[in-house]
Amino acid sequence: MVEDGSPALRELMAILAPHTGGAYIVGLTGAPGVGKSTSTSALVTDYRARGKRIGVLAVDPSSPFSGGALLGDRVRMQEHATDPEVYIRSMASRGHLGGLSAATPQALRVLDAAGCEVILVETVGVGQSEIEVASAADTSVVLLAPGMGDGIQAAKAGILEIGDVFVVNKADRDGADATARELNHMLALGERREAGDWRPPIVKTVASRGEGVGEVVEALEKHRAWLAETGKLAVRRRARAAAEIEAIAFAVLRSRFGSLHGDSRIAVLADRVVSGALDPFAAADELLESVE
Amino acid sequence: MVEDGSPALRELMAILAPHTGGAYIVGLTGAPGVGKSTSTSALVTDYRARGKRIGVLAVDPSSPFSGGALLGDRVRMQEHATDPEVYIRSMASRGHLGGLSAATPQALRVLDAAGCEVILVETVGVGQSEIEVASAADTSVVLLAPGMGDGIQAAKAGILEIGDVFVVNKADRDGADATARELNHMLALGERREAGDWRPPIVKTVASRGEGVGEVVEALEKHRAWLAETGKLAVRRRARAAAEIEAIAFAVLRSRFGSLHGDSRIAVLADRVVSGALDPFAAADELLESVE
Repeated sequence: MVEDGSPALRELMAILAPHTGGAYIVGLTGAPGVGKSTSTSALVTDYRARGKRIGVLAVDPSSPFSGGALLGDRVRMQEHATDPEVYIRSMASRGHLGGLSAATPQALRVLDAAGCEVILVETVGVGQSEIEVASAADTSVVLLAPGMGDGIQAAKAGILEIGDVFVVNKADRDGADATARELNHMLALGERREAGDWRPPIVKTVASRGEGVGEVVEALEKHRAWLAETGKLAVRRRARAAAEIEAIAFAVLRSRFGSLHGDSRIAVLADRVVSGALDPFAAADELLESVE
Repeated sequence: MVEDGSPALRELMAILAPHTGGAYIVGLTGAPGVGKSTSTSALVTDYRARGKRIGVLAVDPSSPFSGGALLGDRVRMQEHATDPEVYIRSMASRGHLGGLSAATPQALRVLDAAGCEVILVETVGVGQSEIEVASAADTSVVLLAPGMGDGIQAAKAGILEIGDVFVVNKADRDGADATARELNHMLALGERREAGDWRPPIVKTVASRGEGVGEVVEALEKHRAWLAETGKLAVRRRARAAAEIEAIAFAVLRSRFGSLHGDSRIAVLADRVVSGALDPFAAADELLESVE
């Protein structure tokens, strides 16, 4: 229903609302090839060993062609396929990012209400869209791998700012220490922290053998505790909910404004602006009055 | 006043509105190094020879650091500095893209009302932000240069879709023909045209010597005539005005929603969604009712 944008979604969300808020949401992002799926699978294994019910949401906002790749990745998670306490879902882009950005918090709400104690949201790529999806998380994990020039890529994509925990995966490869050092240096450069601020840890892993994964979970739990103690968890969740509410409100308004064809409110006003009969500020006022 | 977002902007736009609509707006975009400034300057020279009053707006949405580079580029346009029929303005990013996207149509309106018959909007880079700025134009020119792997970059950035006229500049260099061929091939691949649709021409130039620039202006005038004949000019301008009106309306609403601090409307609703007392659809309804 969430993926299809079902008309019953509104009713569904109303029913689920009282059952939400219990899940801890962890975002995982990083460039293709850093081992996101393997890391996600290893994190599921570790959390399952701690007795947690887990949800996994794999989101690909960038490419309509990678649905296949995502499904291929899912094969690596086969080991969890028969575990009733693990729910795994891939959401491929159906063209429009807006739709997927909107669908992600709703899908999270469903998993939350279903009793998942931890939800891992895995996004593909390191672009702006991933940062948007990552903003749906309580804690964001940024994955890197040695020798991919990730440091610079990460800086460009603004990903240093969103990482709460950094993981250098494939740490058995040459250059892992150099990548960790470079990352540490870049984090220090960008640092404008005050006392009590969170300092993102850098954890080295070999996810395919499960090495270092326990340390990642401990880093996550530390961050979660810090969020709760400082009140930042409430701040983040409030900001997230506000963005979601606003997006829905604007979508409702957009449908009231009408399409650009025919004599809809906005089409008529736009024509008056084009002809010079009206300025855009006055048009915006009229538009808001007309839908109120 | 436009750049500073002056409170008097609303009044200014109301006064200017009846004097707008006469300008033909041409967007120029392309990767750094393709010769955008040189091409812009050469186009100004050609249009001036045709007796047109010209406005140039150079917009850099991507980097807060390139203000200097832009100013450096302006030096190349010194030949037009004393011409009273040429107005040149650089708008550097002041951090937030939303602000610049909003400022661009307003700045265009000022130049339009000032009697500029042609306005060249030059944007730096080939990212999403440039596509947004380019959408402010009647005709979009995409510039490429040989041997920069531009073809593939352009395809990635979705720039093939926005180009109405393609220019391969630095056509005296090796690889110009290959770039034009590759571009032609990619345009043909993406083609889903019907009879009467516009087929973007590819023009080769050496802008530094003015070679081929007349052909670019002729291609622009052809596109302009095609836009007018087919009614697409009205469609594009309506869509542009509608986007501008909607952006202003949403900004007005956002200010009514309040900040995320304290007991603003949206903060209170967001907290109720976080606690599970309310679902986001119901919250959006309440939000809209509260500001109506």
